[in-house]
Amino acid sequence: MTEAVPAIQTLLEELTKLPGIGPKSAERIAHFLLAGDRKVAVTLSEALRAVVERIRPCRECFNLTEGDLCPICSDRRRDGGIVCVVETPRDVGLFERAGTFKGVYHVLGGRLAPLENVGPDKLTLTQLVQRVRRGGVREVILATSPTLEGDGTALLTSNLLAGTNVSITRLARGVPSGASLELVNSQILADALDGRKAF
Amino acid sequence: MTEAVPAIQTLLEELTKLPGIGPKSAERIAHFLLAGDRKVAVTLSEALRAVVERIRPCRECFNLTEGDLCPICSDRRRDGGIVCVVETPRDVGLFERAGTFKGVYHVLGGRLAPLENVGPDKLTLTQLVQRVRRGGVREVILATSPTLEGDGTALLTSNLLAGTNVSITRLARGVPSGASLELVNSQILADALDGRKAF
Repeated sequence: MTEAVPAIQTLLEELTKLPGIGPKSAERIAHFLLAGDRKVAVTLSEALRAVVERIRPCRECFNLTEGDLCPICSDRRRDGGIVCVVETPRDVGLFERAGTFKGVYHVLGGRLAPLENVGPDKLTLTQLVQRVRRGGVREVILATSPTLEGDGTALLTSNLLAGTNVSITRLARGVPSGASLELVNSQILADALDGRKAF
Repeated sequence: MTEAVPAIQTLLEELTKLPGIGPKSAERIAHFLLAGDRKVAVTLSEALRAVVERIRPCRECFNLTEGDLCPICSDRRRDGGIVCVVETPRDVGLFERAGTFKGVYHVLGGRLAPLENVGPDKLTLTQLVQRVRRGGVREVILATSPTLEGDGTALLTSNLLAGTNVSITRLARGVPSGASLELVNSQILADALDGRKAF
């Protein structure tokens, strides 16, 4: 009856707050952490404490980092003239894993979502405009998610950058590589036809 | 490129050590923990630290608890004369949730597994025999898992208790309630026939 033990109960509650962890997974994890020498519980606790204390936004691009500048912004081999605007630090990881982009990023910190009370002031839009105005940026790629909210965010961003002299682009829309056409909706097919290229 | 940030990398490594958490889930959880005010990361870190520091085995039954005696052993309404012997603290939770058992437990701390180097000395068998010898126990229910290793553990336990004057029982074997017979193997059907009861 681990349920009646307050410390375990608290741990279970905290674990179920994590995305993808339900009550059953939480219990499995808690019992795993409580078994044996509990070294994993200690190191995990310390790792959590460490990210809370050390990780902060990059001064330039607002990606998460330990120092002042993130590893990408401080990498001299990256092209600072091309800025890929993404919603979250997680998106930076996704693009980095794709491995083809050699420019730098700007993390907005979310997307416009009026229903969730996320207005333009919650995003790093002012900082993006300032960054572009400081010069050196030739192209801004709007890489927000291809959803209503992402598109809205991209539109506002492009409006804010209208006065500056950079070229503004957005990600191509089309059928996703590797997917079966049957699984793709009509909006995706319409986009793919719209943006068709010479073979 | 959160991969290049040591504190995040460490957190990802620790998260993937948990059962059921792969690299993708770990990343999802890490980004969840890093977003916003990070309160969940702090409270989870503290909850982990708390279980490591506070949770220990019950003096009587070796279930996990915060005090000296677990809530079940210190509950005067439970029948201390019936001891249900289980492998892990998790099993105690399973039986408690079934809700019909009013006796107490004895947690062995595992099952015999020669291949994993788990011999009788790793289990709380001596403590169980001492507990029974101290008197007051009328029945010991062997509730180890219905597997080769669980059965072996039950057999050894019953041998060790042979000299004492308690009745030794084991869980009924049969078809699992709610399952389709098609999904049940022949050993289960053989057990169910063997243990059939008047209707």
